[in-house]
Amino acid sequence: MAIPYKFRKLPIEKVFRDPVHQYVHVQHQVIWDLINAKEFQRLRRIKQLGTASFTFHGAEHSRFSHSLGVYEITRRICDVFKRNYSTEKIADGWDDSERLIALCAALLHDVGHGPYSHTFEHIFHTDHEAITVAIITSPDTEIYQILNRVEEGFPEKVASVIMKTYPNPQVVQMISSQIDADRMDYLLRDAYFTGTEYGTFDLTRILRVIRPYQGGIAFAMNGMHAVEDYIVSRYQMYVQIYFHPTSRGMEVVLEHLLHRAHVLYKKDSRFFEKTSQLLLPFLEEDFSLEDYLRLDDGVLNTYFNHWLDSTDPILNDLAARFLNRKPLKSCRFQPDTQMALIDTMKAIVSEVGFNAKYYTGINSNFDLPYDFYRPKRDKHRTQIELQQKDGTLMELSKVSPLVKALAGQEQGDHRFYFPKEMVDQSSQDNYDLFGESYQQFANHIHNGELVE
Amino acid sequence: MAIPYKFRKLPIEKVFRDPVHQYVHVQHQVIWDLINAKEFQRLRRIKQLGTASFTFHGAEHSRFSHSLGVYEITRRICDVFKRNYSTEKIADGWDDSERLIALCAALLHDVGHGPYSHTFEHIFHTDHEAITVAIITSPDTEIYQILNRVEEGFPEKVASVIMKTYPNPQVVQMISSQIDADRMDYLLRDAYFTGTEYGTFDLTRILRVIRPYQGGIAFAMNGMHAVEDYIVSRYQMYVQIYFHPTSRGMEVVLEHLLHRAHVLYKKDSRFFEKTSQLLLPFLEEDFSLEDYLRLDDGVLNTYFNHWLDSTDPILNDLAARFLNRKPLKSCRFQPDTQMALIDTMKAIVSEVGFNAKYYTGINSNFDLPYDFYRPKRDKHRTQIELQQKDGTLMELSKVSPLVKALAGQEQGDHRFYFPKEMVDQSSQDNYDLFGESYQQFANHIHNGELVE
Amino acid sequence: MAIPYKFRKLPIEKVFRDPVHQYVHVQHQVIWDLINAKEFQRLRRIKQLGTASFTFHGAEHSRFSHSLGVYEITRRICDVFKRNYSTEKIADGWDDSERLIALCAALLHDVGHGPYSHTFEHIFHTDHEAITVAIITSPDTEIYQILNRVEEGFPEKVASVIMKTYPNPQVVQMISSQIDADRMDYLLRDAYFTGTEYGTFDLTRILRVIRPYQGGIAFAMNGMHAVEDYIVSRYQMYVQIYFHPTSRGMEVVLEHLLHRAHVLYKKDSRFFEKTSQLLLPFLEEDFSLEDYLRLDDGVLNTYFNHWLDSTDPILNDLAARFLNRKPLKSCRFQPDTQMALIDTMKAIVSEVGFNAKYYTGINSNFDLPYDFYRPKRDKHRTQIELQQKDGTLMELSKVSPLVKALAGQEQGDHRFYFPKEMVDQSSQDNYDLFGESYQQFANHIHNGELVE
Amino acid sequence: MAIPYKFRKLPIEKVFRDPVHQYVHVQHQVIWDLINAKEFQRLRRIKQLGTASFTFHGAEHSRFSHSLGVYEITRRICDVFKRNYSTEKIADGWDDSERLIALCAALLHDVGHGPYSHTFEHIFHTDHEAITVAIITSPDTEIYQILNRVEEGFPEKVASVIMKTYPNPQVVQMISSQIDADRMDYLLRDAYFTGTEYGTFDLTRILRVIRPYQGGIAFAMNGMHAVEDYIVSRYQMYVQIYFHPTSRGMEVVLEHLLHRAHVLYKKDSRFFEKTSQLLLPFLEEDFSLEDYLRLDDGVLNTYFNHWLDSTDPILNDLAARFLNRKPLKSCRFQPDTQMALIDTMKAIVSEVGFNAKYYTGINSNFDLPYDFYRPKRDKHRTQIELQQKDGTLMELSKVSPLVKALAGQEQGDHRFYFPKEMVDQSSQDNYDLFGESYQQFANHIHNGELVE
Repeated sequence: MAIPYKFRKLPIEKVFRDPVHQYVHVQHQVIWDLINAKEFQRLRRIKQLGTASFTFHGAEHSRFSHSLGVYEITRRICDVFKRNYSTEKIADGWDDSERLIALCAALLHDVGHGPYSHTFEHIFHTDHEAITVAIITSPDTEIYQILNRVEEGFPEKVASVIMKTYPNPQVVQMISSQIDADRMDYLLRDAYFTGTEYGTFDLTRILRVIRPYQGGIAFAMNGMHAVEDYIVSRYQMYVQIYFHPTSRGMEVVLEHLLHRAHVLYKKDSRFFEKTSQLLLPFLEEDFSLEDYLRLDDGVLNTYFNHWLDSTDPILNDLAARFLNRKPLKSCRFQPDTQMALIDTMKAIVSEVGFNAKYYTGINSNFDLPYDFYRPKRDKHRTQIELQQKDGTLMELSKVSPLVKALAGQEQGDHRFYFPKEMVDQSSQDNYDLFGESYQQFANHIHNGELVE
Repeated sequence: MAIPYKFRKLPIEKVFRDPVHQYVHVQHQVIWDLINAKEFQRLRRIKQLGTASFTFHGAEHSRFSHSLGVYEITRRICDVFKRNYSTEKIADGWDDSERLIALCAALLHDVGHGPYSHTFEHIFHTDHEAITVAIITSPDTEIYQILNRVEEGFPEKVASVIMKTYPNPQVVQMISSQIDADRMDYLLRDAYFTGTEYGTFDLTRILRVIRPYQGGIAFAMNGMHAVEDYIVSRYQMYVQIYFHPTSRGMEVVLEHLLHRAHVLYKKDSRFFEKTSQLLLPFLEEDFSLEDYLRLDDGVLNTYFNHWLDSTDPILNDLAARFLNRKPLKSCRFQPDTQMALIDTMKAIVSEVGFNAKYYTGINSNFDLPYDFYRPKRDKHRTQIELQQKDGTLMELSKVSPLVKALAGQEQGDHRFYFPKEMVDQSSQDNYDLFGESYQQFANHIHNGELVE
Repeated sequence: MAIPYKFRKLPIEKVFRDPVHQYVHVQHQVIWDLINAKEFQRLRRIKQLGTASFTFHGAEHSRFSHSLGVYEITRRICDVFKRNYSTEKIADGWDDSERLIALCAALLHDVGHGPYSHTFEHIFHTDHEAITVAIITSPDTEIYQILNRVEEGFPEKVASVIMKTYPNPQVVQMISSQIDADRMDYLLRDAYFTGTEYGTFDLTRILRVIRPYQGGIAFAMNGMHAVEDYIVSRYQMYVQIYFHPTSRGMEVVLEHLLHRAHVLYKKDSRFFEKTSQLLLPFLEEDFSLEDYLRLDDGVLNTYFNHWLDSTDPILNDLAARFLNRKPLKSCRFQPDTQMALIDTMKAIVSEVGFNAKYYTGINSNFDLPYDFYRPKRDKHRTQIELQQKDGTLMELSKVSPLVKALAGQEQGDHRFYFPKEMVDQSSQDNYDLFGESYQQFANHIHNGELVE
Repeated sequence: MAIPYKFRKLPIEKVFRDPVHQYVHVQHQVIWDLINAKEFQRLRRIKQLGTASFTFHGAEHSRFSHSLGVYEITRRICDVFKRNYSTEKIADGWDDSERLIALCAALLHDVGHGPYSHTFEHIFHTDHEAITVAIITSPDTEIYQILNRVEEGFPEKVASVIMKTYPNPQVVQMISSQIDADRMDYLLRDAYFTGTEYGTFDLTRILRVIRPYQGGIAFAMNGMHAVEDYIVSRYQMYVQIYFHPTSRGMEVVLEHLLHRAHVLYKKDSRFFEKTSQLLLPFLEEDFSLEDYLRLDDGVLNTYFNHWLDSTDPILNDLAARFLNRKPLKSCRFQPDTQMALIDTMKAIVSEVGFNAKYYTGINSNFDLPYDFYRPKRDKHRTQIELQQKDGTLMELSKVSPLVKALAGQEQGDHRFYFPKEMVDQSSQDNYDLFGESYQQFANHIHNGELVE
């Protein structure tokens, strides 16, 4: 065909019905092909929120749907920029020839995620960002081959947007900044699927006030309240959804389970060779990109299912706890003053018969809902800028008292996790023997030393 | 504790955040325990809509969340009945001592579902309804043990509601009739997660007009339009969501894939012994309830993932098509007049190199949005009754012209499935050799003999 | 400025926050000026649904907001047509130079409405459609002056769209056909403000499938179900909202009240001269366009308020009933067989002391949710056409069994209205005297001869 | 009938369809009668948000619908309290015999509002709170008569809740506190009708965590984020909706218009005697409760309509500006430093020919989204208390960093209003004469001394 691949449009625009954005619109052949690439389709089998669906049962959506959403928001931003702020009208405006690269980066920004990323990475030393870049730039992937058809060097350009080294800050900030298409989609999407109203902010209004400037992306001053609302949504989603103690109690189980497998494998690999075929390269700590791309949530869950037949009582029991949703319970504590107390409590857990290494844990979760640029804290942070009528910029927290209150304030907590059996009498079979220890444990909590 | 298990309430009502019903409220210890039973938790790993999420990417919700929803609607119906129509006030009213049995049956009505039920059952001759009954009544399951603590014979009673043999028709019709808690939840839930507005009807209003009568459940005459709206929603969801040709194109791939495995296993079982541990009892056609309860969507997908390494090109290719979402394409046809044409087309598919047995298929889907009782057609159908102020009943289609139009009218179509390669030139590597065959195939479709 | 008024765009697009469409976007100076014209601003003081807000208290929205909504839907249709079906691409497509005329006609199509139009017109022989045309084409109005600045003859062209004599059927059908911007807005808007879910249909999807053809406007075949859903919404809104017996009971009061004023004025005009200044030209049956434009809901209500001081007991009492929401009650009847019975009932109403002329009434409301073109029934009806891939058209009810059921079926009823006192014992002061009559009246209803 | 009026329930619960709460449920005969009282029905004719509908055209809802909403939220709170915290279970809990008084106070708390209350009160020295009390306690009103049927002294009790002198603080705080049924309804309702998403918070969740304690109403600690969200909603609604400069520009017009009428009436009353019958007692500054109850938005608007015929050019012009929506324009200023500048600007306005007294104005709007109790600032403020598991209370801003940031921080601005003609060249007929003055005026604004 005469039209180069880069410019090829679908004969009729294709749409995906999306509960968050109504429709996701695809116009470029390139985007259509990327969505159909097997590395991208694999995201259908990885949940966006990992263990959070154990707390919020609606939150079973995948990274596939989030990726489409980020693409769609980026597409809409490009449309706004092109209509109102194209370089044809405004110096320092938006150059629409950047559109395809922005769309590809948006679509692919999470393509390197694996199952239960956070925990998996911790145990097996993988890195989803590095893998995202590898998928985009490795000649063997379908993704690479599609991108490379656009033009030579295009895969590397797309990767550089994700690595924030791409020269055009407008493109970079669309995908990663404190108010980017990624965050906007996940706040709205996670709110929709968990069924909470906290994450809702007014995307339509944000899209009315967003605008490019020479140094990146800003918002019209009269959109200040819409941006405030977004920041508050972010705050609310973190403290209420992402940091929920129950989901983290499942994460601790998962971490111990994977860790146990890793330990056992080193001693005796035969059981895993029979039951956990696709996990072997990771247990061996020697995996290829191809190995990585075979994994998904279902693969891990299936192996846990196989492990129910293990003769190791810890592997077996933790697998059952994970599959049957038996989270560890928890209480908040202060690491600077209460570590001794935590040690005491671990000792009690051991005393009644649990291996404290696998049945207790510490989980800390913090987020910074917003911060202005502080050279020492995070060199790469871009602050949110509001643009006045005369074109000058004001950093958000300078204008909004609400955001000023949140700026630089980390939200989150430290939690100590332990078996539910420690505080639930109905499940204490050995109460006759260890009643006193159980009592002691409970007292530490109910005295208010530690808070649920 | 002094209170018998049957009457034990949770100290504080527990809730699940639910995007469709806002909250699912749990008050009984029995219900809480059932939800935590491992057979019930397993439903988290089985998608409600099977292959439909390949078409509607938001529809990744599980049978777990649907089951909670059916429970919640049933609970609300019981509340309405108790408040307004209890037998204390009205003879032929609602006896609230039936509540617990109704709630248990509602929660458990789908507990026997397995992965991709429809297709799986077809190949492996399982039966999710029989298995639901087995889970409820087999002494080894956690579900049984919880139910049996309520009182002896209670599991069997719950099972009888699901089998529609329970003597109280009000309880039976809450769970299964043409407008029951099951359907009401799935229409609303599937509409929410697919992101369509078609399935939306006014549940609040339905709950205002629903009422018990001696023979079951009826609706106040002034609620007629709310019921009409529900029927139309059902019609729309079937024709637009449940019967979508693409989801069925994935179902055909799945069916052939499982069939191929079954065939290969009979010839040479070793490959499957190594890769498909939990599926062996089904390939062997000799499975226990315990075997069945190990299965879920992730298990099947993981084995398909293993099968990518098979040396059988058909197994291997079909597995890749399923995992990477490469549905067969289709066109509608009339089985009474066009079977010869379909045979011709299958022959062409063979000619260009596909094994027609595994790469073509027929898929027919029909639903009856509503029907009144016709003794010959479906003996067990209960019709929807509207109750007039004087207590007499009128069958819905007698009053509503809209429903009359739909009553007894099956909706759906017959489709012939074939590889996309047959009509997509860009994927025809062997066009030089078989160009004429491809042309012929395309002509049958484009001439309007068959309609996409 | 150099740019002719016709093509003048606002420097920055202006928006109105709208609960139904999120934003109403205004780009043309002409549209902005029309909205600010005093004849258009007057629509803020006229409720869209008249007496319906007495039944659905949320439905207090004005014709102003509906008019903006019709404009906005029309604007979106033009955008779709321009993007995908412009005459530049497709012969028989959309000529975007028609946009301004379509937008003006959409915005102004209801500008001639007065307070409580239906009832007012009946008593005072006004005609809101003729007045719409008059406002647009009378040199003294601000509307005319704005339109005439566009180009000479432009006001008349806009008026011709509303009169359906404009030569381009695409423009005419956008504004008036069985599925036009007017109906689409009012169904969605009235559903939103009444708080019902029945009127909801999927506008986004309709806008995806709407398309121009040489003879007007059609819908892609694959949008059939979205169109079906719209037809069902229309049906539901009519039977449940627009025909609600209580709103009609208020309408009957209003009609009798205005009629009484008209009668009294002929006998003795002084009272009205003092109290009802702006209504005098109508009581005189000699009014100018300027007189008409002074009226609004508040003016009528204020005069009713003044009439509370009238010495005429009927005027006085009916005014109080209207202001204080005391609707007449009603029952359904069959005019062909039950007129004698109605006469009997009127006689009883008289007997107990009401003037039957002013305290009883008949109100009949019917709507045809959809019909195909039947030359004899309604020459001007355009049917809804679905367009197949090859361009040929199919009339909707030929394809949809649902619509076929509704086609040509009028929905509605005849109702006989009477004072609530006839059936509400607590308000019957004279029960000692007329107890038997009251009994008799009630019997006719409770025997089931007539149905509430 | 045997049941005393106080306890009389409607035979069947009645409902109002409400877009915000789905249904408003009425169970008591007393409530039903109050709703039908003429003083309450009058609220249908008074807009909830006054001039805000000139900015947000959807916001045409009445005080009637808001009052029903406050009633409904109060009813739901009573239901929660009765179910979970009744004095039967918990000392210091909720005594459900207080329900009827709470419901009546909730329903009637705004019954004394008149048309455009804020402005009207300012000019005519009325006081809607005093009038609310008067309506409830004056023997001639229907409201009083209904309440007095409940029991002697009941009207006074209801009034005392509104005056905050009722002894039970739980009842008082339900209706008036920093998070009461009144505010909760208006935030949700105004958000719904304006079409903004800012006012949305999670009422369902608030109702799950609200609870009575001895000193009033508190919220469970785990509901902290729901309360935070409510506070942020309040903040957003004030800064974005309630303080919108355009609505205030209409308010300034209205104030000047009413003031002009007042001034003219003192000089020559005849014109008003002919045109403004129901306003005379207010122009005379001698009005009765009955006089007040005749007023509504439509009455004022109708008289403004009559005033279009006045020979006083200011009355006439301001009336036209109000009816045809021609708001004054504005800029923000600092009263402590910029009063001299404002005087200069007023002088320029006079210079070009406007009477500065009637065509300029200052409007200041401030709100305190939340504050804890500060004895000196507002003695009657009750702070929001969170209740920990052990029953102790924590003041909200002690726990929430978000609320801490807002506590005690007044939000709002001072604005100087002037005719649009001052800055809109297209409307400056006399530019030849006064061009320099116009320039000067514009410069003060565009130099950034004052900010739009």
